[in-house]
Amino acid sequence: MSGPPTTLPLRSSPDYWASANADIQAHLERAIQIRHPLAVSEPMRHLAFSAPETTAPALCLLACELVGGSRDQAVAAGSALRLVHAAASAHEGLLSSRPRKDGPKFGPNIELLTGDGLIPFGLELLARSDPNHSNPTTQAESSSRVLRAIIEIARASGSHGMVEARYNEIEMIDSDGDEEEWVERVCKKKEGEIHACAGACGAILGGGGEEEIEKLRRYGVYVGMIQGIVAAKRVGRRRRKVGELRELGLNELKGFDREKVEPIASLMLTSEHDRRLRVTD
Amino acid sequence: MSGPPTTLPLRSSPDYWASANADIQAHLERAIQIRHPLAVSEPMRHLAFSAPETTAPALCLLACELVGGSRDQAVAAGSALRLVHAAASAHEGLLSSRPRKDGPKFGPNIELLTGDGLIPFGLELLARSDPNHSNPTTQAESSSRVLRAIIEIARASGSHGMVEARYNEIEMIDSDGDEEEWVERVCKKKEGEIHACAGACGAILGGGGEEEIEKLRRYGVYVGMIQGIVAAKRVGRRRRKVGELRELGLNELKGFDREKVEPIASLMLTSEHDRRLRVTD
Repeated sequence: MSGPPTTLPLRSSPDYWASANADIQAHLERAIQIRHPLAVSEPMRHLAFSAPETTAPALCLLACELVGGSRDQAVAAGSALRLVHAAASAHEGLLSSRPRKDGPKFGPNIELLTGDGLIPFGLELLARSDPNHSNPTTQAESSSRVLRAIIEIARASGSHGMVEARYNEIEMIDSDGDEEEWVERVCKKKEGEIHACAGACGAILGGGGEEEIEKLRRYGVYVGMIQGIVAAKRVGRRRRKVGELRELGLNELKGFDREKVEPIASLMLTSEHDRRLRVTD
Repeated sequence: MSGPPTTLPLRSSPDYWASANADIQAHLERAIQIRHPLAVSEPMRHLAFSAPETTAPALCLLACELVGGSRDQAVAAGSALRLVHAAASAHEGLLSSRPRKDGPKFGPNIELLTGDGLIPFGLELLARSDPNHSNPTTQAESSSRVLRAIIEIARASGSHGMVEARYNEIEMIDSDGDEEEWVERVCKKKEGEIHACAGACGAILGGGGEEEIEKLRRYGVYVGMIQGIVAAKRVGRRRRKVGELRELGLNELKGFDREKVEPIASLMLTSEHDRRLRVTD
């Protein structure tokens, strides 16, 4: 993919990302109380908060703001996305093709069971987030958005979403497939789809139109694919690909209010990216 | 618990149960299509349909009918409950304290990943089941019931529901606790809570009032506890306890339309129960 360099504002500012993540963290801190039995709630807190960082939850909040919503409309969905990611991380450590050197902190049985509870908990938080409206039309509209976000997140974390992505990944590890196939089959399916879901959910919950929802879904695919490449420490070999994906992603943001686009565009340049991508800037 | 024997109709008819289960089976058959990649969809079908039978999904449909709803209002929730049970069964086979003699059919990685997808899929089905109404007030009411059922099922299958129950169970197996404690900590928490959830969800989706919802939630606890005792083949030692639980359960059905109570009451006497309980009748 060639073309003129983007003219969208692209300062290397991770502040928006950090601030959205802090809001999600605070929401989850309140939601996940330490309660009896500690053997259940402690590993739950541990797995929820110790998973590697991901940009999908923040993308959800920033997409909501971009379409004119307020951040609190998307914070439960962002929290659910974080728990989906945490559940996948917990169970990834249990896959027999992937022994971890350090071993799970709580033993495999507890990581299995605790991981099982994280996605339902996230969807519960999301279902509970539907506010009470006095006007039935407003209520119907609000509930319909929340139900739609539940469908999006459940599908992305289910059998033909995250589960299929992890299956592809295991298959690719075994087969040593080529680099191009790996980007399409693993990064696009795994990080791409969950970020696409995050972008779409944010736009749905913020009251975006169908076109905005689909633009932010596609933007999420590109953000996620870049994240996948960065996470696998394969940027060196895929520098050109990352540049192309960034261009494609930023294209999706055209048409939105230029003044409001910077926060979400900054996800293309987290400090991690920035370090690795400086040579291409 | 003593008291006069119940006068509610209690014929040994498993027909209602079989018919509700057949409706759920048909719903899931349509929902779980065989699709590419087969390595993902085949184990999903296998795990969804091969889990040991449970009465919770049927209870959900029968509770919906008891409060005046139609069965199709609860069939997605019943299907979700069946998938929650299937997910728990799949992962139970992976617990290291519980090696299965036959081993998982698809290998532990696939059972782990496939099991992970079942609960989100069930909640997705439920979220999609909210019908479109032209009247906003009716729509708001309908969406609110579906969201409430999602919260119920997500909570019952999450960290402080099913997950905690399985934790209790593992702990009890290790500790060889006494029989009374086992009934309270394992049967009540595990089978009791998921059946309670099923009764409540059926009543919510069928448009029952709060009192009806709570009665059917309590009825579910007793049905589930009996199921737990029967499943563990411990009826012999707990015959008296089963009789008490049945009495308590049937008490909760008083006040409902006597003509309509027989189907749901029959869950207290599945043919399996019946064989084992004949001596107490």
